[in-house]
Amino acid sequence: MTARIHPAHFTIEAMTAYLSEIFPQAGIGETFFVEEILPMRAKMRLVFDEKHLRPGGTISGPSMFALADVALYVAVLGEVGRVKLAVTTSLNINFLKRPPPADLIGEARLLKLGKRLAVGEVAIHSAAESELVAHAVGTYSIPAAKRD
Amino acid sequence: MTARIHPAHFTIEAMTAYLSEIFPQAGIGETFFVEEILPMRAKMRLVFDEKHLRPGGTISGPSMFALADVALYVAVLGEVGRVKLAVTTSLNINFLKRPPPADLIGEARLLKLGKRLAVGEVAIHSAAESELVAHAVGTYSIPAAKRD
Amino acid sequence: MTARIHPAHFTIEAMTAYLSEIFPQAGIGETFFVEEILPMRAKMRLVFDEKHLRPGGTISGPSMFALADVALYVAVLGEVGRVKLAVTTSLNINFLKRPPPADLIGEARLLKLGKRLAVGEVAIHSAAESELVAHAVGTYSIPAAKRD
Amino acid sequence: MTARIHPAHFTIEAMTAYLSEIFPQAGIGETFFVEEILPMRAKMRLVFDEKHLRPGGTISGPSMFALADVALYVAVLGEVGRVKLAVTTSLNINFLKRPPPADLIGEARLLKLGKRLAVGEVAIHSAAESELVAHAVGTYSIPAAKRD
Repeated sequence: MTARIHPAHFTIEAMTAYLSEIFPQAGIGETFFVEEILPMRAKMRLVFDEKHLRPGGTISGPSMFALADVALYVAVLGEVGRVKLAVTTSLNINFLKRPPPADLIGEARLLKLGKRLAVGEVAIHSAAESELVAHAVGTYSIPAAKRD
Repeated sequence: MTARIHPAHFTIEAMTAYLSEIFPQAGIGETFFVEEILPMRAKMRLVFDEKHLRPGGTISGPSMFALADVALYVAVLGEVGRVKLAVTTSLNINFLKRPPPADLIGEARLLKLGKRLAVGEVAIHSAAESELVAHAVGTYSIPAAKRD
Repeated sequence: MTARIHPAHFTIEAMTAYLSEIFPQAGIGETFFVEEILPMRAKMRLVFDEKHLRPGGTISGPSMFALADVALYVAVLGEVGRVKLAVTTSLNINFLKRPPPADLIGEARLLKLGKRLAVGEVAIHSAAESELVAHAVGTYSIPAAKRD
Repeated sequence: MTARIHPAHFTIEAMTAYLSEIFPQAGIGETFFVEEILPMRAKMRLVFDEKHLRPGGTISGPSMFALADVALYVAVLGEVGRVKLAVTTSLNINFLKRPPPADLIGEARLLKLGKRLAVGEVAIHSAAESELVAHAVGTYSIPAAKRD
């Protein structure tokens, strides 16, 4: 692991503001909401909206991908701080069940936090029920000296 | 493989119309354009727009995921015909290089087309250069008797 | 989910015998040991041996892949019973840390158990320490009517 | 990409010798044979043997994983030279078709070769037929200053 001090200074408000600044088009605070930041973990909500729908009234794959990606990103930033150029290097997602038309919750957990690479998983379930609708594993590259 | 007749009746226009009907919110004909449908293959274009951007002026991961997913979907539909409830069951994407601010091209190729399951890969490159920016592998479940 | 009755009749001994019968070359009871079968879960041990080593004295990737695969397989069989032709359809593994030269423990948990498809994850750690060395997600196809 | 000089000095014999030295237990020259090393590509053969079998007379998943992993590894080494501590960081494999009881051929192709990370894909087919039996995508971490 690393000797990094845990940046507990990221309140939900500070994280929301930071994400909105670095991803102005991502819908943070409109579509995606930070619900929890814990050591090695983060919880995000995707607010249900007609535009995420696909045939059968279910939420689209790209919307679930985006939720998984941002939830893992928040878990990484929660540990490493304001690293603007941290990037997703891969994401593997399994769609398990058609989600009902309701908000989705993504719960991210880091499996590894190295100096250059983080790996984490995200369990996605509907706010309306506990069964998983998708599960993702992502990897993130952390640049060495790009902290703000 | 299968005894399916190849539905060469899918012109680009017919595929665009069908996708727009089944995915009215996906931006088919606005953001995503079908460029080519060949046996076991499809080519899609993601038209560059400010809203796909992320820090550093690059195209976002979810936009590339959506391009990979729809390109594979078109390759599957090109083979199996109007199967409205075909669904993505998994997608693994590797991000290889930050794309420049330009259109992206996704070239999908089916690796397997079974009766119930299709597997394919997508190579994504910028319209501005030939080097790959992302590569994805997806799996699709094909329902037995849900053809329109 | 499914209406299957949970086959609690699989003792560790019965599972070991069944695996040895269907995978005579896999080293069940020699290299891989079933340690626990619980609803939707299984725990397997890979006994450390020189032949799993790779440069630096660490356990090889293929050995960890085999552990992940068999642990998920046992979790699936624990639910569906003696389905000889259940097959792995995909496996995605992330290697997180070089394992020390010691036994490895694979803890599998099913994320979805459908009629035709099961999806599960496996966390692998060294018996010598709790930190994860690898994490895998696999999918399994369950044939409809091939129970023994 | 990188400014590395292409190490065309790796003949098939030299690669075989180097792999045997760094992976003495991997069966290089017994089970796995280097067949071709080209820029960004490598071809390996898995010689059919009873011990790779699983139920139904087919080759086991771990054997195909090992073939994919070593083929990609050879493609990476072919580019970067003798980097003993290059490691697989992830591998995603899709099993497409049960292979017949015959040799398998793994054809690896690098999709990205960065300074620290390589990504490649492997198509696996039976020596007895051209249809794919498996397809894998792997990522490799290349240590900065560990060349022999």
